[in-house]
Amino acid sequence: MEYRKVGKWGLKISELSLGSWLTFGNQLDVDNAKEAMKEAFKNGINFFDTAEAYASGMAEFIMGQVLKEFRRTDIVVSTKIFWGGNGPNDRGLSRKHLLEGTWNSLKRLQLDYVDLIYCHRPDPETPIEETVFAMDYIIRNGLALYWGTSEWSGDQLEAAHKACRELNCIPPIVEQPLYNMLSRERVEKEYLPIYEKYGMGLTTFSPLASGILTGKYNNGIPENSRLARFPGLRKHLEERGLLGDETIRKVREIGKIAEEIGAKQSQLALAWCLKNPNVSSVILGVSNVDQLKENLKALEVKEKLSEEVMERIKKILE
Amino acid sequence: MEYRKVGKWGLKISELSLGSWLTFGNQLDVDNAKEAMKEAFKNGINFFDTAEAYASGMAEFIMGQVLKEFRRTDIVVSTKIFWGGNGPNDRGLSRKHLLEGTWNSLKRLQLDYVDLIYCHRPDPETPIEETVFAMDYIIRNGLALYWGTSEWSGDQLEAAHKACRELNCIPPIVEQPLYNMLSRERVEKEYLPIYEKYGMGLTTFSPLASGILTGKYNNGIPENSRLARFPGLRKHLEERGLLGDETIRKVREIGKIAEEIGAKQSQLALAWCLKNPNVSSVILGVSNVDQLKENLKALEVKEKLSEEVMERIKKILE
Amino acid sequence: MEYRKVGKWGLKISELSLGSWLTFGNQLDVDNAKEAMKEAFKNGINFFDTAEAYASGMAEFIMGQVLKEFRRTDIVVSTKIFWGGNGPNDRGLSRKHLLEGTWNSLKRLQLDYVDLIYCHRPDPETPIEETVFAMDYIIRNGLALYWGTSEWSGDQLEAAHKACRELNCIPPIVEQPLYNMLSRERVEKEYLPIYEKYGMGLTTFSPLASGILTGKYNNGIPENSRLARFPGLRKHLEERGLLGDETIRKVREIGKIAEEIGAKQSQLALAWCLKNPNVSSVILGVSNVDQLKENLKALEVKEKLSEEVMERIKKILE
Amino acid sequence: MEYRKVGKWGLKISELSLGSWLTFGNQLDVDNAKEAMKEAFKNGINFFDTAEAYASGMAEFIMGQVLKEFRRTDIVVSTKIFWGGNGPNDRGLSRKHLLEGTWNSLKRLQLDYVDLIYCHRPDPETPIEETVFAMDYIIRNGLALYWGTSEWSGDQLEAAHKACRELNCIPPIVEQPLYNMLSRERVEKEYLPIYEKYGMGLTTFSPLASGILTGKYNNGIPENSRLARFPGLRKHLEERGLLGDETIRKVREIGKIAEEIGAKQSQLALAWCLKNPNVSSVILGVSNVDQLKENLKALEVKEKLSEEVMERIKKILE
Repeated sequence: MEYRKVGKWGLKISELSLGSWLTFGNQLDVDNAKEAMKEAFKNGINFFDTAEAYASGMAEFIMGQVLKEFRRTDIVVSTKIFWGGNGPNDRGLSRKHLLEGTWNSLKRLQLDYVDLIYCHRPDPETPIEETVFAMDYIIRNGLALYWGTSEWSGDQLEAAHKACRELNCIPPIVEQPLYNMLSRERVEKEYLPIYEKYGMGLTTFSPLASGILTGKYNNGIPENSRLARFPGLRKHLEERGLLGDETIRKVREIGKIAEEIGAKQSQLALAWCLKNPNVSSVILGVSNVDQLKENLKALEVKEKLSEEVMERIKKILE
Repeated sequence: MEYRKVGKWGLKISELSLGSWLTFGNQLDVDNAKEAMKEAFKNGINFFDTAEAYASGMAEFIMGQVLKEFRRTDIVVSTKIFWGGNGPNDRGLSRKHLLEGTWNSLKRLQLDYVDLIYCHRPDPETPIEETVFAMDYIIRNGLALYWGTSEWSGDQLEAAHKACRELNCIPPIVEQPLYNMLSRERVEKEYLPIYEKYGMGLTTFSPLASGILTGKYNNGIPENSRLARFPGLRKHLEERGLLGDETIRKVREIGKIAEEIGAKQSQLALAWCLKNPNVSSVILGVSNVDQLKENLKALEVKEKLSEEVMERIKKILE
Repeated sequence: MEYRKVGKWGLKISELSLGSWLTFGNQLDVDNAKEAMKEAFKNGINFFDTAEAYASGMAEFIMGQVLKEFRRTDIVVSTKIFWGGNGPNDRGLSRKHLLEGTWNSLKRLQLDYVDLIYCHRPDPETPIEETVFAMDYIIRNGLALYWGTSEWSGDQLEAAHKACRELNCIPPIVEQPLYNMLSRERVEKEYLPIYEKYGMGLTTFSPLASGILTGKYNNGIPENSRLARFPGLRKHLEERGLLGDETIRKVREIGKIAEEIGAKQSQLALAWCLKNPNVSSVILGVSNVDQLKENLKALEVKEKLSEEVMERIKKILE
Repeated sequence: MEYRKVGKWGLKISELSLGSWLTFGNQLDVDNAKEAMKEAFKNGINFFDTAEAYASGMAEFIMGQVLKEFRRTDIVVSTKIFWGGNGPNDRGLSRKHLLEGTWNSLKRLQLDYVDLIYCHRPDPETPIEETVFAMDYIIRNGLALYWGTSEWSGDQLEAAHKACRELNCIPPIVEQPLYNMLSRERVEKEYLPIYEKYGMGLTTFSPLASGILTGKYNNGIPENSRLARFPGLRKHLEERGLLGDETIRKVREIGKIAEEIGAKQSQLALAWCLKNPNVSSVILGVSNVDQLKENLKALEVKEKLSEEVMERIKKILE
């Protein structure tokens, strides 16, 4: 396992990391989560990601129960604030929700501080100076060591850094975008100035494009698959054309390359993300330990991705 | 119930809110207050306003007793500091009184923090930089999430924002002025630059002009009415011409419109305040639950206030 | 008793105040001190001054024992840091001594915070930025509400304010100089720009010039008098010419005026200090309650000091 | 014992001080350390230096056990953060390691704060602004009173001071370099602008060049000597030519001067360091109390180092 710096900053996280989205509190209870996290740590994963929104706080609670068995300095724990409930002040990036959300997340996690805290989405209804002052409060009071953003636009990140400079606030060091073979625009184009000017790192999610990049939807939506169980997600993907013929054709082509180099298609998709030097860590979501073990093999597959193979993939994706 | 942003900021408060001035600790004890606050919350009110000065701290104590039964993130609690006692340092906006006043208010409220804390009046005897540094202390130490002012002039607000910028202090986000059909100058003219330049919101008090706008003083001062019981208030209103013939004539004219649209005159007066988009919340003072229920119907009346009706009211008030 | 603002700032202190120098821990034990402080408070004194150096910390301890019986917001308590012991880091205005000194003073005083904390002397061995950052720490951590200096030169005060502006630190609001009829230069000339530019107030000590202005040394040094008991003090005064013939002649002249207006000479000397509008409070040191009562009559004497009388005194002192 | 200011700053430390490198937790257990520290303190040493890295935290623990018997204000305690373990975030100057390292050091030391905290080495992998913000956090939260660096280059120190100015952070006041007769370049040339522009002081280590300057390696490496026990150190010195003929010749020449002035060669080497006015303190590492007593005599030897003797030494070292 390689440990990468988060952008230009001093924090180091494992190139593969374990997320809790859709799994902790759903497929995984405390015991399963413990098994997965211990296996992950044994294999060099030191970064564990959660959010107040996941399973209505249950994901944080489960992760907190397991984290007690780790040495605090060995791990990097992140959470994200945005959706904390249904009340008028339970969501968004107001000072009220950011502070109350953080205090409550730390209670569920049973931690004094998280390493990273993310603004889980941009909030156009709150002025950036309010958000920046609140995140600065969180850092300067020791509730988190670093802060980041998730799914903010390049312009929104520019505005955040400008406000930090003007208000003498500590700036964000990391973005958490969706990134995979089928969604590359933001990470590979829009964020370019952000890496260079501000040295931000990336922790990326959805490396398998909700499973599409495993090839399992190549012949329609199987019963009991995630897309069958979450019709909202299916609709969302359809609207973005990700279940269309053109996409499936590309996925099949990529599948052939996977076969050639002796890898599962999912492993190839993960390894491909790791080849991007601006990516600090690719967050895995796993339903069980076997899936985790399978995904970890992406590290070996990464070694097989020569420039020539990468070039072929690039052509397919164009 | 509509939830409005406080000016441009991320905090959201119900357009109608419940104050404790003249009522908590007077007409309302802990049990009555609890009944009123629960009814208010059930109807969507999330903002509860008090002050260290109200009933010599009793209003805060009563509100604190009731607030224990609410989820902290569901509510927005404000208090105000200025009149804390009779000693030389018990009033005004010195650092000593602002900090001691806040510490003591929080004890009476039994809270770790309030959402909003107001400077209850301007204090020309204290330099603005002292006040601004003290409010910044209160925010940065987590005793309050936001701060505001009450009954400050436009120039005083300008000075406060200028000092905040120069001293790198967190600026006020809200003013709490008196505002009703009979007192419009400040809110509709003097503060205009403040909304635009600083995005401040308003929480307004005295929507019924001490009862004048209910029409109950149209034929003199009834026994047992508030003006009969508080001669000081009566004198104050008389001096400002608010009990004069010209005013009563206007109130009667407005009364006819209320009748036309099938509303109580008090409901029309409240609804009229709500039509001003710069108003974030209109603070109600109620003596009992029935009055609260009656006032809440202003929300329905608001829907009936067409442009044409508003224009007619405007003409009457001129 | 008049309450004066400390310079332009919002803090208000009684024009006469009670110090603990040379008395608390020497002539006054806890019981005597309690009696004196209660009498002082009853007569309107709200400001009580001490220092870590007085009686090796005993003065602070005694004051702390008595302060428990006062309401915290009723009083203004000050201490001063500079001489805390004999070790290399027990004195001066280094960050180490300022912070350790303050922590230890608060323990002896049994208080969470003092209202005012003074740098008891300038420290040419410590750079002003170190001192300013340390005092800012003390204020921003709630250990004191305001800070001041004692016996700093006009240039040193200029340097302090300049450093505060450059380092975004909270500035000092008060100086504590020696001031009486025989020592006027600094307060009446050197500090003039300081009042105007920075609005600093003054709490002055030694209003009776170690007793010279009571007239009791007009015919030599009586046995058991303070100057007989403290030969160091006597030498110090002699070196500054304050026990010379010229001085004694002036004191006798002033004595005649006192007699004319029906005042004790000590009361006239105190009242004369109070006539200076830049003086916020004159600190009294008393050995017993009777002396305190006698000194408090200076307030009445102040009313008798017409412009004409002040002019005559001015001529004598020239 | 002379107490020197740390550069231009107000903190005062004894010119000789006691370190814990290679000794605490190795040759010295709690009892031996206590004996040494008490002897040191009795002789005027007030500065005790340790680091998280020394004996894997054991040096801090031992020092903490002994420090309980000292008055906190009498002593100046320092630790250093850089090497805290083997995990990806256990070393270097990231915010994560600096804060976690400091929290853990304070626990081992059983202290609320250290006087000085050093960045034990430069960390080119972490941007200076991250380190500067983290050290500022440590100071502003009262975990340390001052901060410094160890073995940073002149350029790195320039960059640190520039970042502090730009980010309004409290700057470092002290460097801890290696300094002795055989390694003079950095202290005597590279750092010159640092003393003048920033008033930094120096606490220097390795005054005897790992024992070479005692003369004990003049005839090869004796069995059981430090160089025999630590082959890594031996190799390191050999690579830098410090065990070569040319060096040994110089050491022998210096030895003759020591003999002339009636001093042990080690005492002369220590006294020579003390003659540099930019040195605030020379840190001694001792294996037992006798060695400490012997080293303390360097203070007397210092008095014998006339300009003429210093000139002769200078010629030899050229």
